[in-house]
Amino acid sequence: MYELISKEGNARRGAFGTVHGTIQTPAFMNVATAAAIKGGLSAKDLKDVKCQVMLCNTYHLHVRTGDELIRRMGGVRQFARWDGPVLTDSGGFQVFSLAKMRSIREEGVTFNSHIDGRKVFMGPEESIRIQSNLGSTIAMAFDECIKNPAEYGYTSRSIDRTTRWLERCRAQMDLCNASEDAVNPHQLLFGINQGATYADLRIRHMKDISSIDCDGYAIGGLAVGEPTEVMYEMIAAVEPYMPADRIRYLMGVGTPGNIIESVNLGVDLFDCVMPARNGRHGHLFTWDGILNMNNRRYEDDPRPIDESCGCPVCRGGYSRAYLRHLLKSGEVLGLRMMVMHNLWFYNTLMERIRLSLDQGTFASFRSEYSERLDRRI
Amino acid sequence: MYELISKEGNARRGAFGTVHGTIQTPAFMNVATAAAIKGGLSAKDLKDVKCQVMLCNTYHLHVRTGDELIRRMGGVRQFARWDGPVLTDSGGFQVFSLAKMRSIREEGVTFNSHIDGRKVFMGPEESIRIQSNLGSTIAMAFDECIKNPAEYGYTSRSIDRTTRWLERCRAQMDLCNASEDAVNPHQLLFGINQGATYADLRIRHMKDISSIDCDGYAIGGLAVGEPTEVMYEMIAAVEPYMPADRIRYLMGVGTPGNIIESVNLGVDLFDCVMPARNGRHGHLFTWDGILNMNNRRYEDDPRPIDESCGCPVCRGGYSRAYLRHLLKSGEVLGLRMMVMHNLWFYNTLMERIRLSLDQGTFASFRSEYSERLDRRI
Repeated sequence: MYELISKEGNARRGAFGTVHGTIQTPAFMNVATAAAIKGGLSAKDLKDVKCQVMLCNTYHLHVRTGDELIRRMGGVRQFARWDGPVLTDSGGFQVFSLAKMRSIREEGVTFNSHIDGRKVFMGPEESIRIQSNLGSTIAMAFDECIKNPAEYGYTSRSIDRTTRWLERCRAQMDLCNASEDAVNPHQLLFGINQGATYADLRIRHMKDISSIDCDGYAIGGLAVGEPTEVMYEMIAAVEPYMPADRIRYLMGVGTPGNIIESVNLGVDLFDCVMPARNGRHGHLFTWDGILNMNNRRYEDDPRPIDESCGCPVCRGGYSRAYLRHLLKSGEVLGLRMMVMHNLWFYNTLMERIRLSLDQGTFASFRSEYSERLDRRI
Repeated sequence: MYELISKEGNARRGAFGTVHGTIQTPAFMNVATAAAIKGGLSAKDLKDVKCQVMLCNTYHLHVRTGDELIRRMGGVRQFARWDGPVLTDSGGFQVFSLAKMRSIREEGVTFNSHIDGRKVFMGPEESIRIQSNLGSTIAMAFDECIKNPAEYGYTSRSIDRTTRWLERCRAQMDLCNASEDAVNPHQLLFGINQGATYADLRIRHMKDISSIDCDGYAIGGLAVGEPTEVMYEMIAAVEPYMPADRIRYLMGVGTPGNIIESVNLGVDLFDCVMPARNGRHGHLFTWDGILNMNNRRYEDDPRPIDESCGCPVCRGGYSRAYLRHLLKSGEVLGLRMMVMHNLWFYNTLMERIRLSLDQGTFASFRSEYSERLDRRI
């Protein structure tokens, strides 16, 4: 359960206890879509880059390989050999962004799998049952991730349905946890706030879902195309209505600057594909900003990516010249190394945020790094 | 230099001292074409799979990134952060197999790069100068790798030219090693035996090149489509003419069974893309034969690839079910793990061959494993 250790302004330093280990917050969860990090990182590699929580995608694991099989293999943690906490999303985001020909009803969503076109139905009960099969530490409620921009009337009706879906998720989660053969009978459930970019709807929805007992509350449906300032406004609007004694998760965000700003607004937990995806494209995070390894000037640069970095790649003495050579030669090793560096950077960023909160220096950390880390070198 | 420790029949147990460390033989060299193992393995990973020698391709490094740049970066060992011995091939094989529109003259070969079509000239002096820039431990002589089948008259003229090329390689290597700014002034040179599938030409050529002082002698141009039995006949034919006090290298071979049989014929050193390439396709070597991870029967198999294996993947407890899931999902992590397993298998195979030679039990090792390891489970 969430323990608030200290505050600086709205920024919270905390710890979130789970049966699979305690998460020091603020924390960044490392995205392992199909129970593997893109770029060839294993669970052991995640430990080596200081990852606290692995995040897996329910939709992907359900449509390929299948949650029933993973259940028989002992759940996703045993399957991927990760002994720390795992958060599974609900599949809602992928159903609404990846799947084709979907139809939404009160019961749930019917859609065609992006793998083989097969018709699949997913509603709150199905999503929770799948996540129970995966045996993650934290399950996410099944919600509608409304696309941006959204019409006011539709958004209002959608969030009410998402509230009703949360009630069904809560009931199903309790049922699954009570089952004799639950992979993880202590599976936690987080509710998700929606409401597009309408502050009043966001607040109304947050009030509604906070009345349903969840182990944490997430803000979803942001960073989907709206201006960054609008995203911050939405977080600031709902934050006062988020239970103070529960962990708070901002879904799918974001740049280092976004994370620092959102911590400042009171968020505890983050996830984003950005460090891995940017790494695969040669865009590397450093404490001086973002370095583009495709740039010719690194062709004969003998220095590591970041001389102040302690990641396995920088510490291993691999040069920018070598990394650029691997990138240009299409060698998978290049992707792996650049993803490792970026994940280490994100996990270290969170470590430094936590340290600054421990020392009461988060405000000066924020003013030193919030803009600097997002700029291109 | 090569030290013969013991013999069992024609099989030799030895040690090959170099300035970058001693190679225990028989040994298998792990192919890192562009100074990186395909499948995302770094130099550190090579240590973890018990690799003794890394092999890099001169042609690939010359046409992309360039040997001059790698020289400025301290040579290929510093570039890839591999502190053990490196063997570079001469580029000859790739010039004759990959490059387009080549023309062969006494001076060397003009060809179009497979990367950008650019016209490149490579002869004995160019190949050795490039390898000197790369600063490998062992340079290979520039030869013509004759295609199979080959006409007798052409083969006879070609091997005489390859002998003249070896003389020029020897002279150029001495010149490069004497240079004040040589990356590795102790670079070794191996001559290469050719002669297609004509035993008399193979023998004549072996006699000719053995009169030119080299640190080792290789058999090239085999395993290029001829029957396996013919390959063994050629090795058996030239072996008596290979200097007993020099290391012997069979290029580009082969299956575990091929290696055991060739050790039995007196070969010390091997390389092959097979373990890495087969690994990437899910074909995994075990002590019971070859397992095809694409097979549906492994879908829910909780066992490691090989229960008797100590590789980082089997030891890490990753199941066949998880590996098959990664393979089917196109996750790079699957390629990496399967390549790691196969390279560990090959390096362990050599370790067990050496142990059996130390114990005088190679004959029984051979009869137990030579056929078994190549069969499909």
